[in-house]
Formats: sequence, structure tokens, C-alpha cells
Amino acid sequence: MTDEKKIFLDNCWYAAAWDYEVAEADNKLGRTICEKSIVFFKAESGVYTALDNRCCHRAAPLSVGRIEGNNIRCMYHGLVYNPDGKCIEVPGQETQVESLGVRSYPVVEKGHMLWIWMGDPALANPDDIHDYLPLSDPDNWCGFPRQSYLHYKANWLLVVDNLSDFSHIAFVHTNTVGGSEEYAYVSVPEELERLDDGFRLERWHYNSNVPPYHAKVIPENERTGKVDRRNLVEIRVPGLFFMETLFAPAGVDIKTQDIGQYRQYRNCQFMTPETRNTTHFFWNYLRNYDMDNPETTKSLQASLLEAFGEDKAIIEEQQKLLVKNTSFDPRFIKADKALAHFRRIWKKKLEEEEQKYPTKPTEESRHRIL
Amino acid sequence: MTDEKKIFLDNCWYAAAWDYEVAEADNKLGRTICEKSIVFFKAESGVYTALDNRCCHRAAPLSVGRIEGNNIRCMYHGLVYNPDGKCIEVPGQETQVESLGVRSYPVVEKGHMLWIWMGDPALANPDDIHDYLPLSDPDNWCGFPRQSYLHYKANWLLVVDNLSDFSHIAFVHTNTVGGSEEYAYVSVPEELERLDDGFRLERWHYNSNVPPYHAKVIPENERTGKVDRRNLVEIRVPGLFFMETLFAPAGVDIKTQDIGQYRQYRNCQFMTPETRNTTHFFWNYLRNYDMDNPETTKSLQASLLEAFGEDKAIIEEQQKLLVKNTSFDPRFIKADKALAHFRRIWKKKLEEEEQKYPTKPTEESRHRIL
Amino acid sequence: MTDEKKIFLDNCWYAAAWDYEVAEADNKLGRTICEKSIVFFKAESGVYTALDNRCCHRAAPLSVGRIEGNNIRCMYHGLVYNPDGKCIEVPGQETQVESLGVRSYPVVEKGHMLWIWMGDPALANPDDIHDYLPLSDPDNWCGFPRQSYLHYKANWLLVVDNLSDFSHIAFVHTNTVGGSEEYAYVSVPEELERLDDGFRLERWHYNSNVPPYHAKVIPENERTGKVDRRNLVEIRVPGLFFMETLFAPAGVDIKTQDIGQYRQYRNCQFMTPETRNTTHFFWNYLRNYDMDNPETTKSLQASLLEAFGEDKAIIEEQQKLLVKNTSFDPRFIKADKALAHFRRIWKKKLEEEEQKYPTKPTEESRHRIL
Repeated sequence: MTDEKKIFLDNCWYAAAWDYEVAEADNKLGRTICEKSIVFFKAESGVYTALDNRCCHRAAPLSVGRIEGNNIRCMYHGLVYNPDGKCIEVPGQETQVESLGVRSYPVVEKGHMLWIWMGDPALANPDDIHDYLPLSDPDNWCGFPRQSYLHYKANWLLVVDNLSDFSHIAFVHTNTVGGSEEYAYVSVPEELERLDDGFRLERWHYNSNVPPYHAKVIPENERTGKVDRRNLVEIRVPGLFFMETLFAPAGVDIKTQDIGQYRQYRNCQFMTPETRNTTHFFWNYLRNYDMDNPETTKSLQASLLEAFGEDKAIIEEQQKLLVKNTSFDPRFIKADKALAHFRRIWKKKLEEEEQKYPTKPTEESRHRIL
Repeated sequence: MTDEKKIFLDNCWYAAAWDYEVAEADNKLGRTICEKSIVFFKAESGVYTALDNRCCHRAAPLSVGRIEGNNIRCMYHGLVYNPDGKCIEVPGQETQVESLGVRSYPVVEKGHMLWIWMGDPALANPDDIHDYLPLSDPDNWCGFPRQSYLHYKANWLLVVDNLSDFSHIAFVHTNTVGGSEEYAYVSVPEELERLDDGFRLERWHYNSNVPPYHAKVIPENERTGKVDRRNLVEIRVPGLFFMETLFAPAGVDIKTQDIGQYRQYRNCQFMTPETRNTTHFFWNYLRNYDMDNPETTKSLQASLLEAFGEDKAIIEEQQKLLVKNTSFDPRFIKADKALAHFRRIWKKKLEEEEQKYPTKPTEESRHRIL
Repeated sequence: MTDEKKIFLDNCWYAAAWDYEVAEADNKLGRTICEKSIVFFKAESGVYTALDNRCCHRAAPLSVGRIEGNNIRCMYHGLVYNPDGKCIEVPGQETQVESLGVRSYPVVEKGHMLWIWMGDPALANPDDIHDYLPLSDPDNWCGFPRQSYLHYKANWLLVVDNLSDFSHIAFVHTNTVGGSEEYAYVSVPEELERLDDGFRLERWHYNSNVPPYHAKVIPENERTGKVDRRNLVEIRVPGLFFMETLFAPAGVDIKTQDIGQYRQYRNCQFMTPETRNTTHFFWNYLRNYDMDNPETTKSLQASLLEAFGEDKAIIEEQQKLLVKNTSFDPRFIKADKALAHFRRIWKKKLEEEEQKYPTKPTEESRHRIL
């Protein structure tokens, strides 16, 4: 699949895998990111490495290879690669060939997530990874560390679109995380903060009923009162979503209060292109209350999975229609402001990258016969 | 899937769905016709509407929307469309935008079938729909109103070909609706009436054995005698098949008799392109005798389904071979006269339509960013 | 699927089917060879015929036809073809049309295998078929005549590559037919005999442990001693593999001995392109000892199937990566000498054939309307 035009940003950090996914895959996980097959492995020293998942010799997958110290051995003809991707052993051949090797990608673990840099390694700065503190703060935030991966048969931007306009929760999630169709009519984003690499927005739903997913996990006497619901949403390139949710009794001016006393959630959702038509979706949903109660965790997990299933159904249908109907021209409504900003800056970055770093083959062809 | 050349006629009525199919799908049915995804819905008033099955906003499918009076609401962000396809509500947005809307298609119910017009609405005349009286005449014709839909993995013209030459029943349907291989040798179409939009032909099989499907449902004493079997076939553009079948005792001159006394069948088969490679196939098989006997209905249904299964197996294999082998050049035999006429007039109509109504985008692109 | 450039050799014999496969398929087998759908059938006289598997009339598959004497009848409209592919009957049509017919391919049975010639029939010489005597010599070689077909989702050359370098058995088959990783380090091909249409090589593994598949079927007292293992490999265009394997007690100079006293195996593997991305794989594994013991047969069959499953897993992954990554440029290592020779001579033959016999339509288009 060779493309004339760039379709993915290269010079940014992508969420690639939860650390537990690599651990459970025997410490070596083959996963496609931006249409490149990558092997992620954890060396005996604990260091993570990401290499092109095809041996330079005959394209056998390294993900079924064997970790040996910090290196990985291809289990077809036995070539060994070090973490830089350099081939350091060819069984039965004494002279090593300098040109043997595979591409190595910068990879960093942060907040239980492995982040990969698909572009120029010289530009990769781990400090640029959006740190999401609740993920590494089990004392204050309780979430569900496993089973928080979904696979979408849709372009990742359609998932970003979905999260950019919360009016959809009124219709898609009425009976799960939405709570009422009223949400789409009476709540509007109060502020849209346009950033160079994304946006932030704040949306209040005042004097509303408690939405079903929340009602299920709070004491009975809290379920019937009216609440003010605040969502602070932040989305960053290439497809990182962070949300703070707060429920306060209706009418309270939270600015004058210690908000630590209210029930709050922290939610991250990371959308990473597997291909142009499929997406890796990583997420967690954390809370600041009832921390030791596994029933609460279970209920929230079930509610969120149900809600994501509602999104997935509609988004995968969108994808099918858009693939068949490439000339579809979406019409804009007022609620698309954030979405339009995100797509604009993403596209700008893509064009800039295309100019600065035109794609070129990283390996020279030499003995081509295949 | 963008095509330079037209592959479907637009200005004609296509069989789209049995009325019971829409009813059973909660009154809103998403179905692809001629490679366009359409939503069919029945308003509370009983009126049918057909719209493009993708919201103009973000291409979400309207077929999972909600019928509200005569309108339908997209359940992604809540846009509401009237039967003309005009968007009459955007939740959270007071000013309506004139340009918001989807394409609406003429759709009419006749003989329990919904008929859709894919071309210029100004040319759509419901009187042009081929009325098939037996379908709406339960007093004189008994059929099976349900379960009469099949999906073909083949171009609809291959099914039309199949029905255009009944010599195939000798070899494909020997043990079901054919009865003998002799049929291909001794019976030939007596007359081929070439029409502007199809053909009619009459084919007699004199002094033949009773074919198995018929033998199963008639009294034992009739099964062994010889019969004269008459098939009157009519096929119309874009792919509508009607047949009258009559069995008379061998040797009777039916022209001098009241044919109402003989066992007769009426059969319609409607072939509608879903895509260039797949076909919606609607059918019914009605009789003029033994009307109250559900066992007869059941037996005929099983026989016909078995026979259609025999056709489907061979036609879907044809399709596979033709897709792989696009340079295949079919050779003509004498029996292809009707088939050749049909393909000729269909192609002529396609070319005329291409000249008169060159395909053009029905919606102007304005804010394209997707 | 029309290709500008040739991708298969035409003027050579391809392994097409085991004779028992045709027998079990009611004597007529539809199978795709080099992207052409072929029907193989065995006439009542015992003669095999191979024809294009599509009736010249409407492309119905002849493989669901009916054998009549030496001929085959299409069961759509009843056309009959003789072994030359000439149509000799059209039901209901007295005048035969000279131009009706399908392509006939030279086909020969040898060693229980049907061999087909895809190119110019005038060049097809059955004497050129590589005779593999053990297959027709049950007195001296015992194998398993059935269940020796596998289907690969990979280009056949990747399977040829696999067999061209036995160092892979060290890593892929350590616990089945390999026996140790040492094999890749200490055993190297002693001689590579380059042929015009393939190669021969000899590889010894001296003083080695008995590999697991062999240990399972020999007396307990032989399992622990060291052995010298000799593999004589021969590979021929288009993808025919033959191997002689011998196990002698370590240190014996077999040149001075009667080798009939040692345990030996004969193995053939025939790789035939179904399409550019899929392969028919035929094989047998024969031995010169313990001939009447069905347990030995069963154990060897299970071991070999397990080993082939190990190959298949890695080769089908290679295929997936190469299809996605068409610019992959394989790097050569010392062990690729035989593989490189084979690909070179195969490519040379392909280019020669392209020059001498440019592809041209074998049938003239005349009444084209489809």
C-alpha cells in the first residue's frame, strides 16, 4: 500500500500499547501502527524496544522471535537484532554484514502506556508525551487497568470527531452516559480554547437528572436530586482525549467550593491509527470516590463499555458509508466548531511535515530480486 | 466506488422491498439499491419515504434513526429530516441552514412491493410501474406472502439471463421444476415478441410427464397422465419477470376451452441490483387451485426454493469466473435470442440515459474538510 | 485480474492434483492453477482431460457438469465438450457452430500425480515430467498416499525459498524435524550443484542427536546414540522439491558401505501457484524400513504435519508483510546461495518465455455483449 500523499503524522507520540498487553503477550507484541507492522518487546533489563516487525533477510515477523537479553532473535533463520535494530549475528556466517538491520523506533513507557515516535528519532522528546497523572496515581484515582482496549473498524479521526462534540451523548447515549435528549438543546460549550495542537472546552449541563451510568453507583438518596454536570474536555494531536467530569448538587457555585468533596471522574481515550480504516482505542475511566469498592468499578466498566458499543456501532457505519462514497461532503453545524478546529490544525501539521520531511526510503535497495 | 461509465439505469422503477420487510424492520429499512444506501421508512400516516441513508452532517446512517410523525431523526446528533429530505431541525442551533438536507427518492407501494425511482423525480410516473395483479388478488390467486426474498452474490443481469432461456430447466432443474432433459430438445419458444423494454415468449412442452414440483401437489390419479405444459414468459427492464404456467391434459386444444378449469400458476421474480456484483431477488409463486390448503403452499414453496438454490449455485459460480476473467467473450447459441434482445435494449436505454442525463453531483461541495 | 507482465511460467509441467483427489471428487475436480480455473476429469476410459472450467456459452463451471463417455456436459444449458475442448452438441440446435469450444490443456498422470502443461501444447513432452520413483514403488518405499495436500495463503516462491535453505530447521523445527539449533551453525551445504532448471545440494550434520520426529519411530536403543544425518536436496522449476534423507551411526564412512542398511526417507514436495498469493502444496514422506507398521506411518505423518504447520505459520506471515510492503528489499546472507540461484534461473526463464511467447488472447472476440 504505497501512497503518494501522507495520511499520518510521523513526528508525534502515538499510544501504542498498555504495558500489561506486552507483558501478557510473552513480552513481545506485534502491532500495526500507522500501517507499519512493529514488534514491541521488553528486554530482560526491563527496557522496551520497538523495531520493524520484519526481518531484513526474508521479512519473517520478529514478533514470533525470541528475546535474548536486550536483543531479539528472528526464529526463521536465527538472525539477532540489538535494540538499535542492528543485526549482530547471522548463524553459520562469521563475517557480519554492516548493512543488515531493521528500523528502530523511539519508544517510552509513561502512565502504563507505551508511546511510540514514528518520525525522525532526532526530534523525539519524551517530555512531549502528554502526561496523564490519574493513570499513575492509584492513591487518588481508581480505574480499571485491564480490558481497556477496543478495536475500531473506522478511521481514527471519526472517533476524534465523536469526542469533539458532546451533543451526541443526548441521542447516542440517552440511556447510558447521556441521560436525556435535553442535553443537546440546553447545554452548549461555554468556552472553546483553540490550541496549536488541539483544543480545550468546558460544557455544563445545569439542573439535570443524574445520568444512568452515574446513578447506578451512587447512594440511593443522591439519585433523584438535580445536579450540575461539568465536563472539561481536552483533545490533542494525533488523537488524545482527556476529560474531567464533576457532578455537584444543582445550584452550587463550585468556584467558591473545594471541588474535592464532589464526585468526579477522569477519563482518557487514546485513538491511534492502525491503518487508514482501523483504529486502536485505549481508555480508562477513573473516579475519586468509593475507591475500594470493586462493585463500583465493575458497574462503571459495564456502563462505559455499553456506551462505547453505542459509539462504535454508529462510527463503523459512518466508515462504511464514507469508504463507499468518497465524494461525500459533510455539512457543518454550529456544534462542529471544535471538530473543525482539530481537523484544521491536524491537516496543517500534516502539510508542514510533508514539506519538511518528504517521505523517502530509509533503506537503499541493493540486491533486489524478490 | 466512482465509475466513469454508467452501469445502472436510473430512470425506471426498481423493486426495493416487500411491504412486510419494512414493517418487520421496525418500519425503517436500510437497503442498498444500485450502489446507493437508502433508508425506507413508513411514517405514522402510512406514507412511505425513501432518503439517502446518510445524514448530511457526518454521514451517520438514518436507518438507525427514529421516525417522528412523517419525519426521521438522525440519532447521532439529532438532525431531523422531512419526507422531502429537507433538514428541519438541528438541536442546539436556532437558525436553520437552508443547504442542509439529503436526497429524497420517489417511492410507491404497489402489489405489496415498494418501488423506487433512482433518476430524475420529474420523470417518475407511478402508472409506469408494472402492475402484477395476482399479487393483490388473494381471492383468485394464492401464494406465500413472506420469505420470498433471496440475496444473490451475482450481477442481476446473470439472473435475467437465466430466466430468459428456459432450456436451462432441463439440466439445472431436472428433478424439481424441470422434469426431463427432453425439455431442452423438444420444446422451443414458439413466438418471441420483442418489446421496447423487454420481451414476451410462449413455450409449450407437449405430451410430457408431470414435473416433480407439480406432481407433489396434485391428486395421485393426475400424476401419471401426460400433460401439455405452457409457459408464457414476460421480462421487462430493469429486471422484472412474470410468468403464466398452465398444465392441460395432453392433446386438448386449449384455445377452444375455458382455461380457468386447468391448474395454473402465476410467478413473478424481480431482480434489483444491490451492487454490480450482488442482487436483491424478490419472488412469489401463486396458484389458482387448492387455495385453502397450507400443505400445498408449503410444498410449492419448498420446491421453488430448491429450484432457486440450483440456479443460485450455478449463477454465483458464473459470477466468480466472470469477475476473475473480465475478458471472457460469451458465444451465442440459438436459444439466446430472447436474452440477446433484452441485453441489447437494456444497453441502448443505458446509453440514451447517459447522453440525456450525464451523471453529475447533486450536492455542491462547500466546506469540504473530511 | 489482467496483468501486463507475466508472473507464471507457462511452458512447464505443474503438479495439479493427486489421482485420488479427482477420484474422490466424483472424477471431476475444479481447481485453479496459475490463476486459471481448470476442470480435471477422468473419462470412463480412464483417460484424464483438463479443460478451461467455464462453458464458452455463459461461463458456467464445467466442474459441476456430467461426464459422458470421454466427454463432459455443461449442466446449465447442456452443451457437450470432447477432450479437445470442442463443443459437439448444443441441445435444441441442429447446426453445430465451429467456433464453440474451450481450451484444452495437456495433462498426464505420473506417480499418482496429475501434471498439467499451461503453455503451448506443441511443446508439451510428458518425458520432461520429473519422475519420482519412490511414489510408484510401494515395494521399496512406504508413504501415506492420502491427506498429503495443504493450501498455503502465500506465493509459491516463498515455500520454495523455505526449502532452499535448510538452516531454518534449526529454529523453526527444533522440536520436530530439526532437533537442535546447532544445525544452523555446524552444518553447511557441502556442494551446491547449479542446474539450468534448479539445483542440487548435499548437507551433512555429523555427530548429532537424533531429531525428535525420527526418534519417535525407531527402537529405543537407537535413540540415544549420535548419528550422521545426510540430506540430499534437489529443487526444480517451477517448484518441485525432492529430498533423500539418511541416518547413519556417527562416524561411519557411508561411501564404503551399502546404504540400503540404513534408515532412509524420500520426500517430495510440489508447490504449484493457485494464484500469485496462494499455493497448492502436495507432498509425501516415504521410508525404507518398518514398512508394514501403520503406527510408524501415523507418527511420521503427525510429525511432518506439525513441522509443515510451523513453516506455514511463518510463511503466511511473510506473505502478509510482503503484500502490505511491496517495497521490501530482502538482504542476502551466505545461506541464500541456492535460493538466489533458483530465483535467478526462474526469472530468466520467465523473461525468455515473455519474449518468445508474448501473451495473446487465444480466442477471438466475436459477439461480445456481456
